[in-house]
Amino acid sequence: MSEMNSEQIQTVAFQIILESGDARTNVHEAFGFMREGEFEQANEQLDVANEAIIRAHGSQTELLQNFANGQTFDMDILMVHSQDHLMTTMTLREVAIEMLHLYKKVN
Amino acid sequence: MSEMNSEQIQTVAFQIILESGDARTNVHEAFGFMREGEFEQANEQLDVANEAIIRAHGSQTELLQNFANGQTFDMDILMVHSQDHLMTTMTLREVAIEMLHLYKKVN
Amino acid sequence: MSEMNSEQIQTVAFQIILESGDARTNVHEAFGFMREGEFEQANEQLDVANEAIIRAHGSQTELLQNFANGQTFDMDILMVHSQDHLMTTMTLREVAIEMLHLYKKVN
Repeated sequence: MSEMNSEQIQTVAFQIILESGDARTNVHEAFGFMREGEFEQANEQLDVANEAIIRAHGSQTELLQNFANGQTFDMDILMVHSQDHLMTTMTLREVAIEMLHLYKKVN
Repeated sequence: MSEMNSEQIQTVAFQIILESGDARTNVHEAFGFMREGEFEQANEQLDVANEAIIRAHGSQTELLQNFANGQTFDMDILMVHSQDHLMTTMTLREVAIEMLHLYKKVN
Repeated sequence: MSEMNSEQIQTVAFQIILESGDARTNVHEAFGFMREGEFEQANEQLDVANEAIIRAHGSQTELLQNFANGQTFDMDILMVHSQDHLMTTMTLREVAIEMLHLYKKVN
C-alpha cells in the first residue's frame, strides 16, 4: 500500500484546521445569539458548524481508515494539532447545544 | 527496556477509545436527565462516566510512565486519536458537573 | 536547520502541561465563584487563567512555526499529551465565559 508523504499529510491537516476553525467561529456566534435570546439564529449557527465539522471529521476518518488498512505515516505536530482542533470544537458544539436548552429554560 | 510493539500500542489505544466512548455516552445521558430535572439520575450517570474515565486514564498514565522510564514507541494516529477522545470526554464531564449546578439553581 | 533533541522537546512539553494545569485550576476556581454568585472574582480567575494559557500557547506556536520552517522532531506521547492539555483547557475556559453570562442572567 502506498504511503502518504509528508506534504499530503500536511494538506489534510490544514483542511481539518480550517474547517474546525470555521466551525468554532460558528459555535461562538451561536453563543452570541443565545446571550441575546435569539435561539433560532443560535440553532442555525450550530447547524452550520456541524456541516464544517462533518467535512473535517470525514478527512480524519479517512486517515484513520487508511491507517487501519495498513498505511503508515509519520505523525507530525501539525497533524496532532489539527486533531486537537477538531475534537475540542466538536466538544464545544456539544456543550453549546446543552447550553441552548438551559438558556431556553431560563428565558 | 523492552519496547511496546505497534500491535500492543493499538490495543491500548482501542481500550482508551472504548472506555472514553462509554463515558461520553454516560455524560450525554446525564445531560438528558438534567433537561428533565432528574438531577439524581444525572448525577449517577456522571459517576458511571467517571469510572470509565478512570479506567481509560489509568491506561494513558501507564503509557506516560513507561515513556518517563525510557520506553520508546512510535506515536500513531490511533493513539493520538485515543488521547483526544479521553481528554475531551474528561472536559465534557467537568462542564456537565457545572451545568448540573446551574440547572439546580434555575429549577 | 538544527533539530530539537528529545530532551528539549520534553522540556517544552512539561512547560505546556504546567501552564495548562495552572490555567485549568484557575478556571475551576472561577466555576466555584460562579456557584456562589461572586462574578467579579470569577472573572478575575478567568483572566489569570488566560495569562497562563497565553504562555503555554506561545510555546506551542513556536513549535508549530519551527515545524513550518522545516525543523523536524519526533512527536512523543508527552508532547501529544501537553497539546491535549492546552487545547482542552482553552475550550473549558471558553465554556466558563459563556456560563458566567448565563449565571449572571439567572441570578
